[in-house]
Amino acid sequence: ERLWQDVRRRQITENNPPLFRRFQYGPVYRYELKLMPGRFREFWQLDFDSVGTKDVAADAEACMILSDALEAIGLDRDTFIVKVNNRKVLKGFLTSIGIDDDEREGAVLRIIDKLDKIGWDAMLLELGPGRTDSSGAAIAGLHLPASQTDQIMSFLQSATGVASRQKVIEQLAALTAGNDLATEGLDELRKMDQLWKSLGFDEERIVFDPTLMRGMAYYTGPVFEVESLMTYKDEKGKTRKVGSICGGGRYDGLVENILGLKVPATGASIGVDRLAAILQKAKPEMGKAKGPILIAYFDDQLQPLYYKIAKQLRQSGLDVEVYCGFFKGYRKMKKQMAYADKKNCPAVILIGSDEAAKGVATVKNLKLGKQLSKTTTDKKEWIGKVQKEVPMDDLVDYLKEEFIAD
Amino acid sequence: ERLWQDVRRRQITENNPPLFRRFQYGPVYRYELKLMPGRFREFWQLDFDSVGTKDVAADAEACMILSDALEAIGLDRDTFIVKVNNRKVLKGFLTSIGIDDDEREGAVLRIIDKLDKIGWDAMLLELGPGRTDSSGAAIAGLHLPASQTDQIMSFLQSATGVASRQKVIEQLAALTAGNDLATEGLDELRKMDQLWKSLGFDEERIVFDPTLMRGMAYYTGPVFEVESLMTYKDEKGKTRKVGSICGGGRYDGLVENILGLKVPATGASIGVDRLAAILQKAKPEMGKAKGPILIAYFDDQLQPLYYKIAKQLRQSGLDVEVYCGFFKGYRKMKKQMAYADKKNCPAVILIGSDEAAKGVATVKNLKLGKQLSKTTTDKKEWIGKVQKEVPMDDLVDYLKEEFIAD
Repeated sequence: ERLWQDVRRRQITENNPPLFRRFQYGPVYRYELKLMPGRFREFWQLDFDSVGTKDVAADAEACMILSDALEAIGLDRDTFIVKVNNRKVLKGFLTSIGIDDDEREGAVLRIIDKLDKIGWDAMLLELGPGRTDSSGAAIAGLHLPASQTDQIMSFLQSATGVASRQKVIEQLAALTAGNDLATEGLDELRKMDQLWKSLGFDEERIVFDPTLMRGMAYYTGPVFEVESLMTYKDEKGKTRKVGSICGGGRYDGLVENILGLKVPATGASIGVDRLAAILQKAKPEMGKAKGPILIAYFDDQLQPLYYKIAKQLRQSGLDVEVYCGFFKGYRKMKKQMAYADKKNCPAVILIGSDEAAKGVATVKNLKLGKQLSKTTTDKKEWIGKVQKEVPMDDLVDYLKEEFIAD
Repeated sequence: ERLWQDVRRRQITENNPPLFRRFQYGPVYRYELKLMPGRFREFWQLDFDSVGTKDVAADAEACMILSDALEAIGLDRDTFIVKVNNRKVLKGFLTSIGIDDDEREGAVLRIIDKLDKIGWDAMLLELGPGRTDSSGAAIAGLHLPASQTDQIMSFLQSATGVASRQKVIEQLAALTAGNDLATEGLDELRKMDQLWKSLGFDEERIVFDPTLMRGMAYYTGPVFEVESLMTYKDEKGKTRKVGSICGGGRYDGLVENILGLKVPATGASIGVDRLAAILQKAKPEMGKAKGPILIAYFDDQLQPLYYKIAKQLRQSGLDVEVYCGFFKGYRKMKKQMAYADKKNCPAVILIGSDEAAKGVATVKNLKLGKQLSKTTTDKKEWIGKVQKEVPMDDLVDYLKEEFIAD
């Protein structure tokens, strides 16, 4: 009976897999024996996946999400590019030139995957006779004949300097004519290209790169990766590329390996810690969260009023905090201003007994203050511009206008 | 030198602690040998804390945050209440009646903490001669004389049935007159009461409860707890109280225990898993997340159009998904509608080649459909009301009006 239940479950899910699409964000764990600096055992990851669809529209969408999301997070569009490949094309091509057993195919793919690190010349040597690396160690070659390595090289280089996705497809089609798997892969790329075109994702944002492998062996079709075009200076002052930021691909076989059910799937991940580090370099000003408007503390009698105002301002959508440090009875204004500065508060509201009696609040615009301190040297002029007395009844409107827009 | 660095660090931070206020949300771990059902080793918690302030305005604020947050999350205001106590008052009171060594004080506090579970009679017995529990096991008593247990009982019961916070303070003040620590604690409660009053947090939302202990020994001053007033039937059909949902308190000694620095602090936590379970009971309809508007898939040729429309709709703030299941070339409308149902989609957009040629889209309002299916039996009438043909150019406006407001 158990057997037939199993068979039925298989029928249901293999012929009729549920479509499951989700994104998730949280801590994940890395199963690696050797952790590198900055590659921690636990890290934060944002994933989005479509399980239960063969349609490469889901792959195309993942690429668009990567492109849009990184821009929305704050990276400038011209500082990164989404690179896309389809393993079916390369696999089909390798079969067509006679590399048709899994073991040799795997070996070739692993060497191609190192291209970024070792470069074209070393890759060619590893496909052929082997080489000696910079430490003097001998690296065995695959000993492919020159006829094959030449074809592989010209296949991989066929898109070098070609920006048009359409052109890359045409060239790869010519190189793989007659191979079914490659043709299927190219049809998928064609479909993805068409979707991107109709949605305005041009070659400035998404390109085809026949050399893109992505490490994981479980990818079966389209693979994608975002490459940062930014550079940084390392500790020796040498300029280095930031390189790959995030990516993903189609993993039609993975669910079967794990659950024994044929369910096609695709998706991508963004490593949040790494992205945060890159953002900090690219946009240091974004690293500092915008703080609340701070209501300074002058007078014990006025504390309920401070909290009342805070409540009103919050209800109108403003982020507000009443200062509650306790050093020397709260009174040191210097402490309070230092706190506001540290928290990146856009403004401080000052209400002493005089102000309360007059029904006004003094608003000190810290944002403007910082800007003006670069151009204004006269302190009186500076205070005149930065501090403003606002009638209590107008406070909500004034602050909303000044501090909600941005 | 190291010594003096240490001393300096202490001077800086003890006289001049930084004010540090934050909230955080994420997985935390429970250090308990015996985990109960529903009490997992890893769980999700939302914390908010103020470190570096003695001012009980921060405690008052934590109580208001608990009250506001639970309401914002979806609990009705009359289904829970924030209970507040101040350990200083009880500690001061115990000293004043002669329970003045730490060990006995701790023992009394631990017995009071069980009140909720064991009830008044059993508590009195444990303070006095001891008792036999329902399993027949003997529980040793503290053997306090009747003069002391009577005073403790009347102190704890002094607020029974008293709704007014002001009244509770007056009664406790009468019972602890002359004790400095209790007076300090009552002043703190008075200040908190004043803030709540001025901000409209009346006794329907926050009450004083002299019996509230909160388990943790490290609380030093105000403690607070949210009690759900809801009940549920257990597996035996017995009505049970949901009881405490979340809480916190002032922990002025804890930072010193850990870091060796005297830094006052207060804060509260919300156990997210537990709250989610309660919400699911209280508002089952909220358990189902609102799905995206689904664009159904009819025609391969139209796929770019589907994604184009999805992009437009997203840019206007709508949550949209293009169906990408692959069963039998996508065409089974029944599958697509089942998917939309399962995802709780408010609407499905249907565009076949006829619609595309006419420049219209058929919008099927699933939300309205569910409501009408209860009252309308005539299928034609139902379809007439639920399906609407909308010119493509009006689609954004139509959907925004129908589906963004709620």
